[in-house]
Amino acid sequence: MALILKNARYLNEMNGTWTARQDDILIDGNTIKEIGSLEHLYSDHEVWDVKNLLIMPGLINGHQHTPMSLLRCYSDDLPLMDWLNKKMLPAEMKMTSEDRYWGAMLSMAEMIKSGTTAYADMYIDMDTIAKAVQETGIRASLARGMIAMDSNYSDRIEESRQLVERWHGSAEGRITAMVAPHSPYMCPPDFLSDAVKLAKELDVPLHTHLAETSDERVMIQERHGMSPVQYLQAAGFFEDTRVVLAHGVHFTEEDLSILESVKGGIIHNPVSNAKLGCGTSNVVELKKRGLKVGLGTDGPGSASTLDMFMEMKAAAWMQKLLHEDASSLSAHEVLTMATQNGAEILGIGKETGSIEPGKKADLLFLNMNQPHLLPAHHDASLLVYAAAGQDVDSVMIDGKIVMKNRELLTMDEEKVMFEAKQSAENLLRRL
Amino acid sequence: MALILKNARYLNEMNGTWTARQDDILIDGNTIKEIGSLEHLYSDHEVWDVKNLLIMPGLINGHQHTPMSLLRCYSDDLPLMDWLNKKMLPAEMKMTSEDRYWGAMLSMAEMIKSGTTAYADMYIDMDTIAKAVQETGIRASLARGMIAMDSNYSDRIEESRQLVERWHGSAEGRITAMVAPHSPYMCPPDFLSDAVKLAKELDVPLHTHLAETSDERVMIQERHGMSPVQYLQAAGFFEDTRVVLAHGVHFTEEDLSILESVKGGIIHNPVSNAKLGCGTSNVVELKKRGLKVGLGTDGPGSASTLDMFMEMKAAAWMQKLLHEDASSLSAHEVLTMATQNGAEILGIGKETGSIEPGKKADLLFLNMNQPHLLPAHHDASLLVYAAAGQDVDSVMIDGKIVMKNRELLTMDEEKVMFEAKQSAENLLRRL
Repeated sequence: MALILKNARYLNEMNGTWTARQDDILIDGNTIKEIGSLEHLYSDHEVWDVKNLLIMPGLINGHQHTPMSLLRCYSDDLPLMDWLNKKMLPAEMKMTSEDRYWGAMLSMAEMIKSGTTAYADMYIDMDTIAKAVQETGIRASLARGMIAMDSNYSDRIEESRQLVERWHGSAEGRITAMVAPHSPYMCPPDFLSDAVKLAKELDVPLHTHLAETSDERVMIQERHGMSPVQYLQAAGFFEDTRVVLAHGVHFTEEDLSILESVKGGIIHNPVSNAKLGCGTSNVVELKKRGLKVGLGTDGPGSASTLDMFMEMKAAAWMQKLLHEDASSLSAHEVLTMATQNGAEILGIGKETGSIEPGKKADLLFLNMNQPHLLPAHHDASLLVYAAAGQDVDSVMIDGKIVMKNRELLTMDEEKVMFEAKQSAENLLRRL
Repeated sequence: MALILKNARYLNEMNGTWTARQDDILIDGNTIKEIGSLEHLYSDHEVWDVKNLLIMPGLINGHQHTPMSLLRCYSDDLPLMDWLNKKMLPAEMKMTSEDRYWGAMLSMAEMIKSGTTAYADMYIDMDTIAKAVQETGIRASLARGMIAMDSNYSDRIEESRQLVERWHGSAEGRITAMVAPHSPYMCPPDFLSDAVKLAKELDVPLHTHLAETSDERVMIQERHGMSPVQYLQAAGFFEDTRVVLAHGVHFTEEDLSILESVKGGIIHNPVSNAKLGCGTSNVVELKKRGLKVGLGTDGPGSASTLDMFMEMKAAAWMQKLLHEDASSLSAHEVLTMATQNGAEILGIGKETGSIEPGKKADLLFLNMNQPHLLPAHHDASLLVYAAAGQDVDSVMIDGKIVMKNRELLTMDEEKVMFEAKQSAENLLRRL
């Protein structure tokens, strides 16, 4: 079925600048087919006049752990290790598959309602999460987060293989899969090498946590006599596989030289990194080195919010703070990180990340006629510095309207909230 | 007229912890009269069942320049001095009184819609702003921001005196007034002394910008051979007058000793300070020294947003980042800063800042039954780390409902948006 978006004021990037143009947009099935003056086609198509809305490409959350929404604000303001060992891990151990399903659904409801159209998930029990992705209509890059303490890890490698074989390219192509050794500190060398081999064999990207804390640097140095980046390199990580590297806060000069030529890039998580006291990635420097940097929220257990509009604000604010320079990391650069860069890093850059013929229709429709978004001097600035997820009026993913006037169309929002609350309560009762 | 809020789940601070209790709340005129089980009074009063909403004290924005909403996102991502000299000042010079009125109205619409019930304004043409305050029903502490380049400043002193004489205590007590010498770098010594004298004579607080940038330190050191704090002290600033000190980013050990015993406190503006590359105030240290710290957005020309929920996030994130410690500045501490502390610093702590009998009814009603605010493990954390201004469903100020179900009741929102847009367009045309 084809749909024409009439009077579409849409925002796209050109030579580093995000500017709005006005045109009609023809969407055929899941694809943007044509952009221009399409009046001659109105009579043969469904027409939606969107003149009161601003359209932008869907936001891409490059690093997430969806079921952890059940643990949102469960243990904030604790030192990092207490947060992890006393609160998060014990609760996650008690999660059932049903809990994970409703946690994932809650995350997807929040993501869609705040304008995320594609995201990367690293967790366990990925069949359950894939089912939620199938139902909700979101675009997802799924990975089984693998931890190994010894050489008995073949089951996790096998699960990763099954995830890729079962789900990669499924849900009308909305789902892709990755191989995800958790992090340098949770993966011994042989395990890491085997994960890299699997990714190469299956031709999918690698996704991992990297250089999140300064403690990680010390730990890997003590264990292996090298930096976390060098440790991944030794396992064959950066040879020719695409890599999705989450965090990237603590790098040395040498690390940066290794990463310069990498395929894929860094997913910057400024809110989680600040909130857990880890520091903030030097995005300005990473970009100077030619590295591609995307944006992610990290899991709701740490970040508390999955709103990429907040993440965009945090990214810009913190670079300006770090460099003591108001011109560091502009709104335009942040928008590129949160859309195109995320798509390219995840390996779905040909499908999504911008509004152009041939790409999938992953679009946000924003209501900019609100006191906090006026006057309209600069759309890019308003989106990054003034808007919030709640200003997204409607969302289209893969050509399908999944939210209209803030009503979710692919999920029963009341039921998801009810079941997620129940799951969280039952989970705490089991602790 | 008396109103009972039935089944009110309301949040208040006790011994540093914000917890919710459930009760009925009787509001008589503009005042909270009684809290408890008031079933016996239902039949004689108007009753509003608020069982689906979470009530918290109204937020207090301790530093703002309302008319600058017309310059929101007009010049982001520029170096500080270019932003100020090439963009803000030339545009402000061309503002008419009508522009300032609609800019102030736009700011007030945004503030009320995002849960601010009281705020401090420092600008010029204060009769115009006071009129807007009168109409919109917000609570305000108004000050004529005074700049002097030489000894011809008697007109500004006179305007400040008139502001206090005309407006202090007006609008049913919602308006208070202050005396505001702009900053150490915009005020020569005699002028500063005369401003202090005026504040003492009229018995109102002093409001000023202080230690916002490191350049300010250098400049005051060169001009006067002392720090900005010492310079204010020399003018009699800290003798016994209440002081509202905005920013407070760059202090020395000596400055802190001077400030320890001050009446009033610091208004921290983390978003503006980060966005302009000024740094971030060491709130943890200020609090350790016994200083009271409130929260403000600064003007929308720098911060771009007047949403105090974003400001609360920024405050917590940035302290954790600064101290590399996830336990620095908890959600509870941030809520106290954004309510009670703000009220006490502005000298209206007896009227507002908490929900208790005898205080004015300045209340927010939040819709917490949304995917991004569930599950409800900790209300304080959810409010600071997950909520946004748009989650405020209704607002009461001085006992009067000024927003219900997100509809503004004291102003014509469409007209305000229309006129503010027109004013901004005309203003740019005059440049």
